[in-house]
Amino acid sequence: MDLNADLGEGFGSWTMGDDTALLDVVTSANIACGFHAGEPSIMRAVTVRAVERGVAIGAHVGYDDKPGFGRRFIDVEPAVLRDQVLYQLGALDAFARIAGDRVRYVKPHGALYNTIGEHEEQAAAVVGAIVDFDRSLPVLGLAGSAWLRLAAQDGLTTVHEAFADRAYTPAGTLVSRREPGSVLHDAEEIAARCAAMAVGGPIQDSEGGALKLDPASICVHGDTPGAVEIARRVRLTLEGAGVTLSPFAA
Amino acid sequence: MDLNADLGEGFGSWTMGDDTALLDVVTSANIACGFHAGEPSIMRAVTVRAVERGVAIGAHVGYDDKPGFGRRFIDVEPAVLRDQVLYQLGALDAFARIAGDRVRYVKPHGALYNTIGEHEEQAAAVVGAIVDFDRSLPVLGLAGSAWLRLAAQDGLTTVHEAFADRAYTPAGTLVSRREPGSVLHDAEEIAARCAAMAVGGPIQDSEGGALKLDPASICVHGDTPGAVEIARRVRLTLEGAGVTLSPFAA
Amino acid sequence: MDLNADLGEGFGSWTMGDDTALLDVVTSANIACGFHAGEPSIMRAVTVRAVERGVAIGAHVGYDDKPGFGRRFIDVEPAVLRDQVLYQLGALDAFARIAGDRVRYVKPHGALYNTIGEHEEQAAAVVGAIVDFDRSLPVLGLAGSAWLRLAAQDGLTTVHEAFADRAYTPAGTLVSRREPGSVLHDAEEIAARCAAMAVGGPIQDSEGGALKLDPASICVHGDTPGAVEIARRVRLTLEGAGVTLSPFAA
Amino acid sequence: MDLNADLGEGFGSWTMGDDTALLDVVTSANIACGFHAGEPSIMRAVTVRAVERGVAIGAHVGYDDKPGFGRRFIDVEPAVLRDQVLYQLGALDAFARIAGDRVRYVKPHGALYNTIGEHEEQAAAVVGAIVDFDRSLPVLGLAGSAWLRLAAQDGLTTVHEAFADRAYTPAGTLVSRREPGSVLHDAEEIAARCAAMAVGGPIQDSEGGALKLDPASICVHGDTPGAVEIARRVRLTLEGAGVTLSPFAA
Repeated sequence: MDLNADLGEGFGSWTMGDDTALLDVVTSANIACGFHAGEPSIMRAVTVRAVERGVAIGAHVGYDDKPGFGRRFIDVEPAVLRDQVLYQLGALDAFARIAGDRVRYVKPHGALYNTIGEHEEQAAAVVGAIVDFDRSLPVLGLAGSAWLRLAAQDGLTTVHEAFADRAYTPAGTLVSRREPGSVLHDAEEIAARCAAMAVGGPIQDSEGGALKLDPASICVHGDTPGAVEIARRVRLTLEGAGVTLSPFAA
Repeated sequence: MDLNADLGEGFGSWTMGDDTALLDVVTSANIACGFHAGEPSIMRAVTVRAVERGVAIGAHVGYDDKPGFGRRFIDVEPAVLRDQVLYQLGALDAFARIAGDRVRYVKPHGALYNTIGEHEEQAAAVVGAIVDFDRSLPVLGLAGSAWLRLAAQDGLTTVHEAFADRAYTPAGTLVSRREPGSVLHDAEEIAARCAAMAVGGPIQDSEGGALKLDPASICVHGDTPGAVEIARRVRLTLEGAGVTLSPFAA
Repeated sequence: MDLNADLGEGFGSWTMGDDTALLDVVTSANIACGFHAGEPSIMRAVTVRAVERGVAIGAHVGYDDKPGFGRRFIDVEPAVLRDQVLYQLGALDAFARIAGDRVRYVKPHGALYNTIGEHEEQAAAVVGAIVDFDRSLPVLGLAGSAWLRLAAQDGLTTVHEAFADRAYTPAGTLVSRREPGSVLHDAEEIAARCAAMAVGGPIQDSEGGALKLDPASICVHGDTPGAVEIARRVRLTLEGAGVTLSPFAA
Repeated sequence: MDLNADLGEGFGSWTMGDDTALLDVVTSANIACGFHAGEPSIMRAVTVRAVERGVAIGAHVGYDDKPGFGRRFIDVEPAVLRDQVLYQLGALDAFARIAGDRVRYVKPHGALYNTIGEHEEQAAAVVGAIVDFDRSLPVLGLAGSAWLRLAAQDGLTTVHEAFADRAYTPAGTLVSRREPGSVLHDAEEIAARCAAMAVGGPIQDSEGGALKLDPASICVHGDTPGAVEIARRVRLTLEGAGVTLSPFAA
């Protein structure tokens, strides 16, 4: 099983999350590429530490929107978006290479991640950039998304992820954040669900039924101190359950 | 002899210079990398056209300063500058590679170019980024600059350029732009000086003496319609003088 | 009758349109406030010239998006948008006041203009900023837009504008830019339509019928050399028809 | 005595310092205006809270440099800098006015503050913007700085501040941050020095002598949790010493 989290999301004098702590927990790092967050010196620091710890480097590509932290839909033309993604891939890869590795996978960020679950033109644009850059890069996303469907059509390797702290509907989709109970906060419960998923067992869906997800990666969060604690608990619980943790992409 | 010019310096809906016209004149294109100017879609368009025409792709790296077009000194920390340059190199290289080529050389832009003529810490930072990225990349600059001296010390190939439309002192340095006569405007005179330089002959310095420069590349400008005309005249005159034009880096 | 146009849309070393030429044509200047375009020194220069010529200063507020020139919808939270508009109003007003005048009206730009024709939450946000800043400021927009409806509900003075070079449906709405013939290019035809509108007469709609618009202002464009010529022709034709040109807001 | 601190220095999803805690400690708030930090919605929130608590609103104007947090010298042209400062003043004043107050004073930030201690052209540019905007605004700075000297020459009211946690030379200038002991960390010592300054008594200079500063305002910091504690201690100590705390500008 793989654990992924967002890293390198500071900017200038501003910090976000505890990159150092998370790099001891996860096996794959979604590293901001300077568009929604991040900047060259942060990218260097995080890629170097990731390689030291054997954590896989993923390109966490986003909209060009630091004021909105990449969390707002932007109706950018697909060809422009494609080139923005390519630019981010190239920039991060330079840091990955001098750290002795290379970009290993791609995961879109925030509003871009959500948008290309359904928005075919923007999904195709992101896929196009990866096809241009390196067809061997696997892409991380939600089962059933337009993004993974189009990526697979173009020959990319698609990898399903599940969210450690989110509730799921019986259909296996995320419960909307607007619904009560959509985000779980109890570390023990979250860790237990992750352990169940990791061994192929069911978790409880939002209506009380048994739901089998089959993720190859589980996404944990790290942008609050409490979140780091949850991430650590997830890792310890998985290890206690005999689950081997390693990057899905190598 | 090589002719180089700055290209890809638009941003969003704003244009700068006539990239298409210049790509028919020069043999090396200093392509903006999105920091002082340029953006992903422009970088794609210019690199594609450059490769089609056999024009070498150079990384025109600059300060992170679009409002100032990279023309203002910024007292950025050397380590930050190094990583900014690396970021730009990686980003442009992604576009160069999908166009079927790669970045062939590096030329700093504007205030960064001027600053690292003397500012050793910033010069070392730019050199460091290139050493990190690809030690085989030649660098373009002014004879006698700290930038080329430090680059040579670190094993990079250094290439001297001369400016087509600038007056030179007897010592071979540029006459300051604050002096009258520092910038030449007569196309015929400019072209004749370029032809002289290209065949190893002397030009007249600012005090009337004979000055031999030995540039491997001549920089022409293109950000005004008149400048494109001058650049064309330079090329025609060089060709008429039997000078073979080809990229210095390939 | 009032003629309005977008001005001050340069940024840094990049220019857009011929501000000086347009200031001799229009009676109202929609001045970019530094979010989609413009910058402090441009704002100063344009406001000073506008006041010298008796041209009314309008705040051309836009999304925070220079790379997209404010032409892409951004799903920004309404409260954030409201504060962005207020910020722009305050900034432009400082320049207007030192030029001896003040901001006289508000016209949203580009994608924001189009969006708030229907998007009630964003329309209310823009209205809210103006109510906060100065309830006496009239707002310019399209008849039938959510923007003008909500502005009127909150007690703002609403002013209808027509576009000199756009085709209209029989219902008085703009023909989509995706349709052939949606944008007119013949200076004579454009000027004749403006003259008709200015004296209360009908123009031909997209299906050949007679359509009466009753604009208090006509919007001309200036971001190409040809556009300036068309704008001049419109002004001359209106003057030739005995129409008095003066700012709608003073 | 007045206590001032920097506030509103977040950006987008990034936070900096504890604005709410500091607003209960200080009497004057230097509020970031969106150039080195800050953004419209933060400006609104901080100005509203400042007015509620009777804290004076100061414009904390800075270089246009979020990636560098305004802490790097930029060799911007004076006329451009002047207009950037005016823009920031106008924007913040809009928020101050809807909160029921107005901008009460100006304090430059970071590298701009340091630069205009000596750089006459940039100092004159900042002064020029304030003269343009509102000659009645007092300006806060270091005794002996070019900035205050030029401001006084142009008729502005100048106000001296001292730094709570900095060591001073016998000449009354700040000990360089590069020197050991330049920044004090002991809350008790800092508070005692502030109390001494507030009643006109001497503090110990860096060579052990007695130094009388006569500040009208003391600057405390708030960008770390420890700093807020120090700021609280300073306030309590001053109140315990019978010092009345109130804004210097009202």
